[in-house]
Amino acid sequence: MTLNILDVSLRDGSHSVRHSFTEDQVRAAARGLNAAGVRYFEVSHGDGLGGSSLQYGLSATSELKLIEAAVSECTTSEVAVLLIPGIGTKQDLENAAKLGAKMVRVATHVTEADVAAQHIELARNLGMKTVGFLMMSHMAPVEKIVEQAKLFESYGAEIVYVTDSAGAMLPQDVTNRIAALRQSIQCDIGFHAHNNLSMAMANTIAAVEAGATYIDGSMRALGAGAGNTQTEVMVAVLERLGYETGVDLYKLMDTANDVIAPIMQQSQEVTGSSLTLGYAGVYSSFLLHAQKAAKQFGVDERDLLIKIGQMKAVGGQEDLIYEVAQTLAR
Amino acid sequence: MTLNILDVSLRDGSHSVRHSFTEDQVRAAARGLNAAGVRYFEVSHGDGLGGSSLQYGLSATSELKLIEAAVSECTTSEVAVLLIPGIGTKQDLENAAKLGAKMVRVATHVTEADVAAQHIELARNLGMKTVGFLMMSHMAPVEKIVEQAKLFESYGAEIVYVTDSAGAMLPQDVTNRIAALRQSIQCDIGFHAHNNLSMAMANTIAAVEAGATYIDGSMRALGAGAGNTQTEVMVAVLERLGYETGVDLYKLMDTANDVIAPIMQQSQEVTGSSLTLGYAGVYSSFLLHAQKAAKQFGVDERDLLIKIGQMKAVGGQEDLIYEVAQTLAR
Repeated sequence: MTLNILDVSLRDGSHSVRHSFTEDQVRAAARGLNAAGVRYFEVSHGDGLGGSSLQYGLSATSELKLIEAAVSECTTSEVAVLLIPGIGTKQDLENAAKLGAKMVRVATHVTEADVAAQHIELARNLGMKTVGFLMMSHMAPVEKIVEQAKLFESYGAEIVYVTDSAGAMLPQDVTNRIAALRQSIQCDIGFHAHNNLSMAMANTIAAVEAGATYIDGSMRALGAGAGNTQTEVMVAVLERLGYETGVDLYKLMDTANDVIAPIMQQSQEVTGSSLTLGYAGVYSSFLLHAQKAAKQFGVDERDLLIKIGQMKAVGGQEDLIYEVAQTLAR
Repeated sequence: MTLNILDVSLRDGSHSVRHSFTEDQVRAAARGLNAAGVRYFEVSHGDGLGGSSLQYGLSATSELKLIEAAVSECTTSEVAVLLIPGIGTKQDLENAAKLGAKMVRVATHVTEADVAAQHIELARNLGMKTVGFLMMSHMAPVEKIVEQAKLFESYGAEIVYVTDSAGAMLPQDVTNRIAALRQSIQCDIGFHAHNNLSMAMANTIAAVEAGATYIDGSMRALGAGAGNTQTEVMVAVLERLGYETGVDLYKLMDTANDVIAPIMQQSQEVTGSSLTLGYAGVYSSFLLHAQKAAKQFGVDERDLLIKIGQMKAVGGQEDLIYEVAQTLAR
């Protein structure tokens, strides 16, 4: 079976390099990915189209320029973009499509696929390959994932992704979710991992074995937290396991080493912070607040994040962190 | 079930810091490991007792001094040493035992357990916990591993380790080997991973599920190649999976972050070199030779290492690399 490898270095990696990608860097990476035969790769601000802002971090170069640069290097690869409704707009999507982006991944919290209906519809009308991307999938039980995937499918999504945004899943969690989707929806299934618990590769294999055919990776693991499944390593491992990816391993390794490694601003190891995020299963944006609140109330930031994780707090509930810290301190 | 965690930061990590450990560093790490309740931790030159040499790299501080320093910090943890017959001697082992080392891991190539008979016997006479450590276990089929483990057991080893020195195994390889040992020998079974294919944690879980009760890890993954299973992450994951380790996660994380992170000389990511070693399944000492030979004969070092791996070359056969390079060039 041939798997579709989708490289997210130029989107999830935007977090890791603080949105500093230049046109030259994107061109070099795009050239390498295209030469290696990677089917799709994503180019956007880390938080998707329209993410460049004081709140999410300003991009050094407009993502539209970066998308245009990437597209111009492609002969067989296609450029994908990420869109989080509420951050990116329909206008942003139209602009990206005009520049040649061929796939959009419309990303919502795992329980909120309904906010994506219009964007999925627009993407189909623009002729794009259309993906529903269920973020923080570890926070919802299997039945909820199935329900939300069915919503995405009903809007017209051709692929639904289980996305382990917090790097909190273990292989059985992945297997349960992907296998249930495989039985419940017609469209293709994808999986996106983070390595906060050193489980990205193991979870990726579990996803493939359960029926996922679209798999995300990032060269040198460049991505938020401890990073993603490392694309070039994944290609080697999948090949050893007997899967076809259509990717030239050496060319991909060369791109990882020659283009991505030199622009890394920090290593993608599992640090104390990324381990805590994965172990607690919380949004990475909670980390700085937790550190601040922990200091203010004299509690351990890890206890705080674990408690927040148990409460299944979602983005926007940062105030809760201070309340919980106050309670823990008593 | 309680698993025995054995931390190898102060031995396998010696490779990563080029044998530069100081007494102060070892004391601080030992204090942290002891406080966290890690049952055993290993202190030796990366290539074991007696490894300090021009060939294997000179230690900045005598390993006997480091062992003594580590022992002096322990109230409940015990210090292990590694001994590779031919590098370390029986005298080295006696010296380590006198200083308070309580466990020795006698390491041989996976097909050569017979060279360890005398050392195992001596270790038992010295009252040490005694381990047979089968290096490069990916190179031998299951029956060979069982045969060699039985030899170790017959010499008096209380634990036999499956050691994935090249980081080349996939979970099924681990499961097959550990499960076969579980059925064939009485002594305890251990597993030591490297992360060259991003599989260290997945392989560790496979080992535990198949019956291994001694598990190696290294803080911040400090070790040869892409490093080992990351101890503090492993403790978190094993806890999530319902295993007891008796280790205080926060204290271990603190030691990893406050003691190990500051002394790291390089990141423990999967680089092109470590991926190639894992993919080819060869000794890390072959890498520099392969790079040299590849340049000399104008071939790709990866093709060379993969060929060498297929030929199942072992340490000492470095000359073969140049012959193969010459053949590939034709």
